[in-house]
Formats: sequence, structure tokens, C-alpha cells
Amino acid sequence: MLLEAVYHRPKLNWSYAYDSETIHLRLRAKKDDLTEVYAFAGDKYIWNQSKELIPMSKFASDDLFDYWECAIKPAYRRLKYGFLLKSDDDEIWMTENDFSKERPPVPDRLFEYPFINPADVFKVPAWVKDTVFYQIFPERFANGNPDNDPAGVLPWGGKPERDNFFGGDLQGVIDHLDHLSELGITGIYFTPLFEATTNHKYDTADYMKIDPHFGDTEMVKKLVQACHERGIRVLFDAVFNHSGKTFAPFVDVLEKGEQSRYKDWFSVREFPLEVNDGVPTYDTFSFEPLMPKLNTDNPEVREYLLNVAEFWIKEVGIDGWRLDVADEVDHQFWRDFRKTVKAANPDAYILGEIWHESSPWLQGDQFDAVMNYPFTDAVLDYVVRGTLDAKGFANAIGRQLSRYPQQASEVAFNLLDSHDTPRLLTLCEGDKNKMKLAALFQFTYGGTPCIYYGDEIGLDGEQDPDCRKCMEWNPDKQDRDLFEFYRKLISVRKDLSVLRTGSITFLHAEEGGSKLAYERRLGKESVLVLLNNYDAGQTLEVPAAGQAWHDAMSGDS
Amino acid sequence: MLLEAVYHRPKLNWSYAYDSETIHLRLRAKKDDLTEVYAFAGDKYIWNQSKELIPMSKFASDDLFDYWECAIKPAYRRLKYGFLLKSDDDEIWMTENDFSKERPPVPDRLFEYPFINPADVFKVPAWVKDTVFYQIFPERFANGNPDNDPAGVLPWGGKPERDNFFGGDLQGVIDHLDHLSELGITGIYFTPLFEATTNHKYDTADYMKIDPHFGDTEMVKKLVQACHERGIRVLFDAVFNHSGKTFAPFVDVLEKGEQSRYKDWFSVREFPLEVNDGVPTYDTFSFEPLMPKLNTDNPEVREYLLNVAEFWIKEVGIDGWRLDVADEVDHQFWRDFRKTVKAANPDAYILGEIWHESSPWLQGDQFDAVMNYPFTDAVLDYVVRGTLDAKGFANAIGRQLSRYPQQASEVAFNLLDSHDTPRLLTLCEGDKNKMKLAALFQFTYGGTPCIYYGDEIGLDGEQDPDCRKCMEWNPDKQDRDLFEFYRKLISVRKDLSVLRTGSITFLHAEEGGSKLAYERRLGKESVLVLLNNYDAGQTLEVPAAGQAWHDAMSGDS
Repeated sequence: MLLEAVYHRPKLNWSYAYDSETIHLRLRAKKDDLTEVYAFAGDKYIWNQSKELIPMSKFASDDLFDYWECAIKPAYRRLKYGFLLKSDDDEIWMTENDFSKERPPVPDRLFEYPFINPADVFKVPAWVKDTVFYQIFPERFANGNPDNDPAGVLPWGGKPERDNFFGGDLQGVIDHLDHLSELGITGIYFTPLFEATTNHKYDTADYMKIDPHFGDTEMVKKLVQACHERGIRVLFDAVFNHSGKTFAPFVDVLEKGEQSRYKDWFSVREFPLEVNDGVPTYDTFSFEPLMPKLNTDNPEVREYLLNVAEFWIKEVGIDGWRLDVADEVDHQFWRDFRKTVKAANPDAYILGEIWHESSPWLQGDQFDAVMNYPFTDAVLDYVVRGTLDAKGFANAIGRQLSRYPQQASEVAFNLLDSHDTPRLLTLCEGDKNKMKLAALFQFTYGGTPCIYYGDEIGLDGEQDPDCRKCMEWNPDKQDRDLFEFYRKLISVRKDLSVLRTGSITFLHAEEGGSKLAYERRLGKESVLVLLNNYDAGQTLEVPAAGQAWHDAMSGDS
Repeated sequence: MLLEAVYHRPKLNWSYAYDSETIHLRLRAKKDDLTEVYAFAGDKYIWNQSKELIPMSKFASDDLFDYWECAIKPAYRRLKYGFLLKSDDDEIWMTENDFSKERPPVPDRLFEYPFINPADVFKVPAWVKDTVFYQIFPERFANGNPDNDPAGVLPWGGKPERDNFFGGDLQGVIDHLDHLSELGITGIYFTPLFEATTNHKYDTADYMKIDPHFGDTEMVKKLVQACHERGIRVLFDAVFNHSGKTFAPFVDVLEKGEQSRYKDWFSVREFPLEVNDGVPTYDTFSFEPLMPKLNTDNPEVREYLLNVAEFWIKEVGIDGWRLDVADEVDHQFWRDFRKTVKAANPDAYILGEIWHESSPWLQGDQFDAVMNYPFTDAVLDYVVRGTLDAKGFANAIGRQLSRYPQQASEVAFNLLDSHDTPRLLTLCEGDKNKMKLAALFQFTYGGTPCIYYGDEIGLDGEQDPDCRKCMEWNPDKQDRDLFEFYRKLISVRKDLSVLRTGSITFLHAEEGGSKLAYERRLGKESVLVLLNNYDAGQTLEVPAAGQAWHDAMSGDS
């Protein structure tokens, strides 16, 4: 037994409250090393009457490790526990500090989950896992009202540049909600809508005002109401890491320097504010002078931003926030943010932009989910880049599942592209089959899938700004086959709750090739998914018990 | 290279801000497996200009692993990083998801420390590591005022029982501060002082009132002032997990049941409040009906308790709080508690009672330290019980150091006994040499040492209630040799800052025996400590460079 590979520590993804009465325990071990694992658990105050051995099962694997798990509902919400590890030829007990051949005679040195306190339980909105999201970049989705176009607006469909405008607006979104409903979309994530100077609006000028080129508060209320009437939820984008250069407090600091009453709203390393050799004398996003970093250590700034967060929920009834550059803002702020947002709307979804492992933010006190770019990477490495074989892909997915509490995985925001990446079709070099394969995994996996506007009708585009092309509304120029594929995928996902909430087991993951088979299971319901990333048909044998199967995509039995 | 043993994950004890400009990175590997480890780090926005290889050094080891560490001050407070691992015959690069033979060509998939935000930096009070604490159980320390004795008080020095009283009080403490000053004490941790029915006062009746058998608010102010004049800081004990049965809100619930306006101040599983087969129908500490668990999910309860925390800091100027049964209270509450306490006194020390690995509470947002019982266990296993040899002991200490950010280890509350354990002398079966050896380690190690009242003059006692004997004030009955030993230890610790803030390296740790040698080092200052737990003298060769050494205990050169 390789003891160096065995891992457990209290809390985090290793022992957490799944709900107000259930504790999940997890243990990591070397891949294929253990044959059985048990939690040895009880109430420390009545140890002898309550202690029991609870079998754990393997719920995920990666290239080096297996991850074992069990769920326990302790009668008095507290748990003392250790583990019993069995391999073919060995039995070892694991306590908090040690491994031993002997069963621990007393519970003192076992691990402990002291108490399930409701305040600490990571609760995610139930609606998210049943939602299919669609990301809209408003300047490029549809121009519904030419009257509010910016000066110098270009004809719809031109080549997107860093600084040009095509006049997309909120009326345009309202005009095209039928398109989303036809596709089956039930959630929209809007990149920023507040007044700003750029076409992407990530340089906020006024957090309390809809950009006049998009519309106004009344228009956005109308839009949100129209969405809600169709069962579509709406996320706004909060750019709280930095403001824009035209944000009034920053303008004041630019004008008055150290005399500005807003000087502590930002993080100025040295006055005067200037840029030397490309480096601003104040903290910014990256080294971008347009985007001065907000100082959330300042109570005034915190109060201002929390008020913004609350205002748009109460004023227009949004269903959550996507948080830009979320990992560069302090954890304390996000904790206050969660309290404010969930008080205003207990069902709000809080989605952070983080491109990395995000466990520090996914413990129940900050976000519900992050933009799941590690998911994106794994799917693209497997389907598009070919840098992962099926086995490597299954391992990458297993590793991701192991990292977070189950409720976080249930509402993970699983995207394949965005305004910050090349388009999926372009990554696939125009190969629609590859694109469909990637989407097939996305829609038959847990979490909440998100389609970047236009992917569904064949929009392509390289890295930003090219990935921000105008939406194609001419049906003759839309790829209706692709649209139909996405529509079908979404419809199948909606029909089969197992695809939204079932467990996943990889039944076959080819080494050195791309054949992959996995099962989603929920109670007696089971869906088998077979992926073939070869150019030609393949044969694959997988274990499938003798039930009645039918093809979910074609409906054939 | 055993890749299964290699561990790193973002934040926690693995990558954390040591101060507002310094990031510590740590990596775990199989013991003696790696010869060199480097952090491969830079600013992601100017990767090519900033990336560098930073050597890491082994800062701790346990039985299975080595722990490597480096400190980095990134110019713009953000860091992208991976690791380069070298063994005798191998070189491997580690990224967030993978190991590779190739140097990562781009930083995208490395780990990330997104930004050092001041709000997230774990700041501990600077005075703590220079303090020597003394724990006082007030009912048994000294009776300075017979007028406030409880009814039925017994003559001083009688046998302690669960429910008897000897009349100790605050005047008694004031009367004996000379004893503490002579010993060299600079901090007192008082077990609870608030009104309660028991002799230990862990069943609070009134959080705003000093127990009348101890004194009153004026008396405690006088005591704290007298302590401060002597350079002694004072911690109070906050019992916020549960109240006592005589706490007015609970009395109201007992009287009015579901009609009580305080019914949500507690966690009642079922009305009426009663005890069936030893199990109360309401949540309690353990199954103790006297101690109903407070419902910190209720905003009224939170506000009440936070007000208590603030009141005693502002009213009498205490220097911190020790928190009873801290791990059974929710994390959210402790986060608010920290904000309240540090706002009232930025230098306050927050000390949680947790008997286990405590990393979930030691990240900078909750406690500064915990009652370090894992330290207690390790020292006792080695010195007293003999269940750890010197090597096992060094491994246990190394494991503890690896678990927490450095600043947490610097203010760890290192005790060898308390009101909740048998007395050290009793654990040593009266063997003073063993007791001295344990104390020698305690005072030549980092963190803040605490002496349980009376240990220094030879008080003994079995598990509670026997460990709560009356303090012996008759000099003829005090063990003055022991007192002198402690006085000397404290004085040496005060003289040598290296003992308070230096690094620790184990130079020799005998396998199957008890000989131990370690070095504490701070810059050019070095202290060598040799422990011999045999009955007879021993010879031990240790590497000690040719400097001038002198015996810190005897003063001999």
C-alpha cells in the first residue's frame, strides 16, 4: 500500500457538509492500490454506542489516484472519524496523524467534523443545474434600435476590431428572444451592460447606469421581465476588480491627485498618476491604464460596490452575477458580497471568473461556481488539440470532480469558448463533427452548460477581438444543421434528469486513442454515452446490463 | 521520483501571503526523494521578462515527507508559478494539472497566486510570540476576599470535586501578581469569569457580568490595569458555543416553550425541552443539559455575542479572547467575531479551543491560534509516554509546522496541560526530570508557551476535577527548585530572540531511542538544544560550526 499517496484533510473537498444533515467524506489513494475503503465513524461523546464502519466507493480517478467517498448523516450533526484501508495484502487504519496496523482503541486522535452549522453549509441555487446558459456580448448580438448607436457605428457584420462599434443593444436582445427560446435556452449571461467607453464595457464609467448605447434602466427591466416570462434567467457582469478610467472617483483622482477625497478608492503606488515604460504608477488590471484596480480594503468602496450588487437585483430582478477577474479581489469582499446578494435574492447564482483551480472560492462562503476553464481545456485537449487521449481526458475530468464539494460540481459553469477565447468552431478548424463531439460531452455532463452567442449557428472567430463578431441573423447564412444539433442536445438534456444530476462513471477510456464511453446514472435511470473522435466508425464494447435501451438523440429503440 | 507523494495546492498552507508583499510557496515530496526544488515564477502579464527559477529549501520533514519552501516578493503582488523538481536521476516540471519532462512553454497552465490583497493577509499580533502565558482557573488560584465566597465554601486546599467551591477570586489574583512577575509571566489566560453556576463557569448565566464570587467589573478593571502595569496581557474566555441553563433567554424558553421570544436563540430539536435517556431534546455541548447550544444562525444571537466580545475589550481593555469549543461554532460567526474584535483592538489575540488540526480556522479570517493540543500530544508521547522515539517526535513537530502558514506557527499556543487534562507532573508520574525535559522543549520552541497555574511549584492532579486543585501558597510546600527551573527557562527565552522567532532544524533524532538535538537559528544567532530522555548521561555528536558557544542555562562558556 503506497501510504505517500493517501490523502485526507479536514474540511474543503475532503470532509464537507453536503446539506444540513449530511457529511461527505473523501479519501485519495494511489490508483488501483486499494480494494476496499471504510470510514470508521461515530459521535465522540457516545463513541462506543455510535461507532461504525461505513463502506466508501470510488467516485473518481485521475492518472495517479483514486478518490473514495461516502455520505453520512450523523444523528447529532457531529462526527469523529478515521479510515480503514484495505489492499490485496494489507489493512491499515488512518488517523489524523498516523497510519497504524491496529484499530484505534479510542477516538481521541481521529479526524473530526465538529458540527454541521447551517451557516457553513454550501448551498447552491437548485435551478442552475437545470439551466442551459447562453452568453451574450451585447454590442454584437443585435441592433434593435439604431437611434442609440454610438457615433461612427459600422454596418452590421463588419470585421470586429479592438475599438469599433456595430450598435448592438438591449432592444436587439428583446427582438431575438424567440431564437433563444427555440434553441431551448433558459439562462443568459450578459457581458457588462453598464456605461463604459469600450465596446466590451469592462472599463465601467458608471455602475448605476445602463450604457446609453445599449438602452436604459427601463429597457433592461423590460428585457429581464420578458426573459422571466419565457423562463429565462439573467446574469449581469460585475466588474469589481477595477473600474474604468472614466469612473467619476478615478477622474477625481486624476484631476486632484493626492488631494482627491477618492485617492484611497484605488491603489496608487506613487503620485502623480502616470504611465512609465508601460507601467502605471497605480495598480491596474494587468498593466492596463484604462482599468485602475479598486481598493476593496476601503470600507467606502466596499459599501459602494455592495450597494451596486444589491441595487440591480432589487431594481430589475436579475438572477445572479458573473464576477470579472474575481480572483484578484479579496476573499473578505466576496464573503460580504455573498451575504448581500443572497439576502437580496436567496436564489441568486454567483459565478466568478477564475481560470484555475478554484477551491479557495468554492467552499460555500463566496461563489457558487466559476467559469470552468479547466473543463474547457480538458475537452479541447481531447476533442480538438489531440493532446489528451480518451484516458487522459477521463483522468482530467476525474481530477476536476475530486477538487470540489459535490454541490460545486453540480452547478459548475461549463463553457467551451467565450469572448476571451477563440470560437469553438475556429478551434475545431471548421470541423463541425469535432464541434458537435465537444458539445455532446458538454451537454451530457453535470454542471450547467453555456453556449457562446452564435456558436449554435456556425459563427467563427479567432482570439479577441475576432471572436466578437456580429451575430448572423440571415437564416440563409446560419448553419441550421448546427442549430438543430444544439436544439436537440438541449432538448435531450431537459428530458433526461439523469444528464443533469446523475453520477458519472467512465466505462471505457482508450489509451493512445479517442474512444470513450461513460455512464450517467441516477437511481434506476442510466444514460450511456459513446464518443468517437476518429474520422471513421469504430467498434467499442462496453458493459451494459440487459435493460431496454433507446437512442436518446434519434429516439430509436 | 515518487510523483504520488508530490503535493501542492493553491492557498492554505501551500501558497499564502506572509505579509503584504511576500508570498510563501511550499511543496511536499517523498522524504529524501528530491535533491533540489525550484519555483518557476513570474508575473503572468509580463511573463517573459519576469520569469525566474527560485530555489526552495527543505523547512520541515515528517515520517513520509519533506516540505520545501521559498519566499517571493513579486513586484506587482501577483504570481504565476510552477515547480521544477530534481532528484538524482530525474527532472520534472509540475504545473497545476500535470507533471512534465518539458519546461512549460507558456504560463497559462501554471498555478496562480492572483493578487496579495491586504484584507486577506493573515496578520497576527506581534507581541504574542514574545509572551509567556499562564493559565488561571480563578476559583482555585487564590481567595483574596472571603466576603464574596459562595455558600458552602470549603477550606482552601481541600480535594476538588466536580461541584465544590474554595473561594478563589480576582482579589486573590491581584494579591499574587508578584508571583507571576517573579516567574517572568507576561500573559494570563483566565478560564471564564462571567456569572455561572459551576466552579469552572463554562455554563454562563450572564455574559455581561463578572461572577459575584469572583468580583465585579470594577475589580476586573483594576486587575487588568495592574497586569498591564507589569507588562502582563490578559485573555478572557468566551463560551459562545453554548450558554448555561440559567442564561436568561434559555430560562425564558424553559418557561414559555415555543411561545418564548427566545426560542430561536437555541437549537431545539423538539418541544418540550426535556432529557430522554440522557439525550436532551435540544442541541447542547456533548449531551450536557446544562449547556444548551447557542444558535449563531440567528442574527440576534450573533449581535448579542459580538457585543459581548466588543464590550469587554472596550470596557476593561483585555488583550484577547480564548474561545471555548470553538470548532463547533460556525466559521461565518468567527469571521464576524474577528472583524469586531480587531476593530476594537487591532492587537487582540484570538485563540480558539480546538484539539485537532486547525487549518480551516487559521487562514487569517478567523483565529490567530488554537490551544495546540497536537503539540501537547507529541511532547507527551515522546517525553512521558515513550510512544514516540526522538525521530517520531521530530517527525510529529515537522508535520505540525507543515500544516499552517508560518505566522500561525509563530503564535501557536503551546501548552503541556490545562484544566481539561491531567497535570504535567502527574503525567510524568512525579518524575521532575521528565517534566523539566518537556518544559525545556516547550520553551526552546517557537509559538507562545503557556504554564498551567501551579505547575511551576509542583502542583499535581489527575484528570478533571483533580487537576483543578487549590494553588499552594505556602512557600514551604512549594517546589522552589521547579519554580527556579521555570524562572530560568523563561529568562533564557526572553534573552534569546532566536528562541522566539528562529527557524528550527533537527540535527539528530534518534531512532528507537530518545536522544534529540535541534538548532534554532535567526540570522547569525544560533541555539543548540540537546535532549536526553534516558535515566543516565549520554553522548551525542552534532554538527556545530566553530563558533564560540556558551551554555544558555548555566551561563558557562
